[in-house]
Amino acid sequence: MEVIQSIAHPSPAKIVLLVLDGLGGLPNPETGKTELETARTPNLDRLAANGICGLIDPVGSGITPGSAPGHLALFGYDPLHFTIGRGALEAIGIGFELERGDVAARGNFCTVDEMGLITDRRAGRIPTEKCTELCQLLDGQVIDGIKLFVSPVKEHRFVVVFRGDGLAPDIGDTDPQQEGVAPKLVVALNSEAERLAGITRQFVEQAREVLAGHHPANMLLLRGFAQRPHWPTMSEIYRLKPAAIAGYPMYRGLAKLVGMDLLDTGASVEDEIAVLKENYSGYDFFFLHVKPPDAAGEDGDFDRKVRVIEQADRAISELVGLEPDVIVVTGDHSTPALLRGHSWHPVPVLLYSKWCRPDLVRSFGESDCLAGGLGRFPATQILPLAMANALKLSKFGA
Amino acid sequence: MEVIQSIAHPSPAKIVLLVLDGLGGLPNPETGKTELETARTPNLDRLAANGICGLIDPVGSGITPGSAPGHLALFGYDPLHFTIGRGALEAIGIGFELERGDVAARGNFCTVDEMGLITDRRAGRIPTEKCTELCQLLDGQVIDGIKLFVSPVKEHRFVVVFRGDGLAPDIGDTDPQQEGVAPKLVVALNSEAERLAGITRQFVEQAREVLAGHHPANMLLLRGFAQRPHWPTMSEIYRLKPAAIAGYPMYRGLAKLVGMDLLDTGASVEDEIAVLKENYSGYDFFFLHVKPPDAAGEDGDFDRKVRVIEQADRAISELVGLEPDVIVVTGDHSTPALLRGHSWHPVPVLLYSKWCRPDLVRSFGESDCLAGGLGRFPATQILPLAMANALKLSKFGA
Repeated sequence: MEVIQSIAHPSPAKIVLLVLDGLGGLPNPETGKTELETARTPNLDRLAANGICGLIDPVGSGITPGSAPGHLALFGYDPLHFTIGRGALEAIGIGFELERGDVAARGNFCTVDEMGLITDRRAGRIPTEKCTELCQLLDGQVIDGIKLFVSPVKEHRFVVVFRGDGLAPDIGDTDPQQEGVAPKLVVALNSEAERLAGITRQFVEQAREVLAGHHPANMLLLRGFAQRPHWPTMSEIYRLKPAAIAGYPMYRGLAKLVGMDLLDTGASVEDEIAVLKENYSGYDFFFLHVKPPDAAGEDGDFDRKVRVIEQADRAISELVGLEPDVIVVTGDHSTPALLRGHSWHPVPVLLYSKWCRPDLVRSFGESDCLAGGLGRFPATQILPLAMANALKLSKFGA
Repeated sequence: MEVIQSIAHPSPAKIVLLVLDGLGGLPNPETGKTELETARTPNLDRLAANGICGLIDPVGSGITPGSAPGHLALFGYDPLHFTIGRGALEAIGIGFELERGDVAARGNFCTVDEMGLITDRRAGRIPTEKCTELCQLLDGQVIDGIKLFVSPVKEHRFVVVFRGDGLAPDIGDTDPQQEGVAPKLVVALNSEAERLAGITRQFVEQAREVLAGHHPANMLLLRGFAQRPHWPTMSEIYRLKPAAIAGYPMYRGLAKLVGMDLLDTGASVEDEIAVLKENYSGYDFFFLHVKPPDAAGEDGDFDRKVRVIEQADRAISELVGLEPDVIVVTGDHSTPALLRGHSWHPVPVLLYSKWCRPDLVRSFGESDCLAGGLGRFPATQILPLAMANALKLSKFGA
């Protein structure tokens, strides 16, 4: 990363990184073809034929990446080094704008008996609507000058954010991770965190009173206290002016963490490409995020994953028409419909530029990419490679 | 390794790692085919066709591995980090059960003249029978409360183990690695090792007297003082319950160092697979070690290496019949018959599981594996990959 920083220079050349979330798959046992290989993708195939292909490992061999490490790797940030505390990631995931100094924690509504012992850590998985109602009861208070934000996530899960001066995040979980015991007491793990520990104790006690009548959600548990990380931005490292075109809060939040501007967009790939066209002159790096392939894979719906890949392919012709200097198409991880979830399998990648050395791959798919000119490599190398192909990297050494 | 530890979870899924020692080879100049490519291996070919193949580097590009680093890499232990002192490795190699606190050293019987100067560091390579007889003369004494074990290895080589409290292994070699000089004096390299240095001096002086009449083996040299390492076990790192099915002491010793249970077995691959069947329900990871391909390679016997690979292939059908969730077949290093020894060439590997992404490889051999879906990669990644395919690894990051 320091090497790249030392040789990166700004230029008008434009890079588009199109992330088809969960792109990689596994073959349908009946046809022997993956979702991507099954899909009719004439535009991607043309890019593959004129470009260079390969397979990437987002984190490492055998490691199934979550969305955060998968994307950070594509942005050129080593996901084993650039990690995010769970509370902060949960807040980012719901689009909460964490400011410098904020501390976020993940919360569960839970059930306790008359003795105060936990009988259900998930409060019977109350509906999200009930969670939202309870969060409103707790949201917005100020304790000792610290403002609290309590926001629903899903079912029994919520996020609490503490905002104000002098907060340190080193607070132990109150969630004992088992039932039949009382919630753990709030403890500061070092002296800097004493202030937040005191405020958290008051919050928990108030919540106990407020929630008393809302059985089964009559108590709460907190864990993963964390601040948002402050990392060098893509502008600082890569001298890029980057923009994110992504509909989902999680991906917008990740893009913001690496210093991208967030552009407003509709959810469809067509919407995103329209936003790309409108803003094309304003930036030299665009991250477009397409969620449906991952969602279809998570649902175990092979055919739908094929269809949404085909839909993305159709939209891509407009993107190609803009003639970016470099186009990269890949995924943040594989999500095979057969596995109904993220997986460790390497992800196909294509890079198109005037200056790539094209290989013999004529069709964008897992098996073809195996023989691609990029080989199999860590996903963190994508961004330097795109920079090189955009002629944004100077010679290293004399 | 810490990442893997943080995401590994136990499950009933079973992994079988079949190590054909010294599997990789070099082509016969007359046919252009390696030993493995020459062998008829219908069972391995079927696994390759339904699985995914590649080539592994046990230690690094161009590095010829010994048996210890070759195996440790396959067990998921970086052989550059997890090293074993030579004395301890020699003891493990003859099946000596090194206990915590024991110090082992490698010994040579040698020849000295009337002046005490070394005339032959190897005592004319005395027969192993003579070595055994001399070891019996020195074995079993107790010096200052420390018990000594002296065990033959081969020809002039033996192992001495010191057992008792308060021993540190930091003792300089007495072997000067040249002739025409006297054996070096025993020196402690730090103050903790003074006690063992004193005991070693007494042992060496007694040996000089005992051996005086046994020309050419009338003296001894010691080197490589070391204790057995204490590493995190495979259970601790990978949450596996592992068993080793290996006939040779060296491989049993290595398996024990990483915490495998050692199962009694006969020497043939058929014996080992019978032991696998008997113990199949008791473990979730099995390491099977097959020595003959390496032995044939070391002997420079191309045709015999072909035959023993074919023999292993026939036996594998029983293994496949057990339907393990993951089968990995590979070697700990290459041993080309043309080179009559271990070599640096990458080793073919195949991984079969329901969840692998099969490639186009239809035949298990060095050239075909080059086009395999696993690519070329460090051997330490085999175990995480097997774990992933057995669905024993959770997602990394949210």
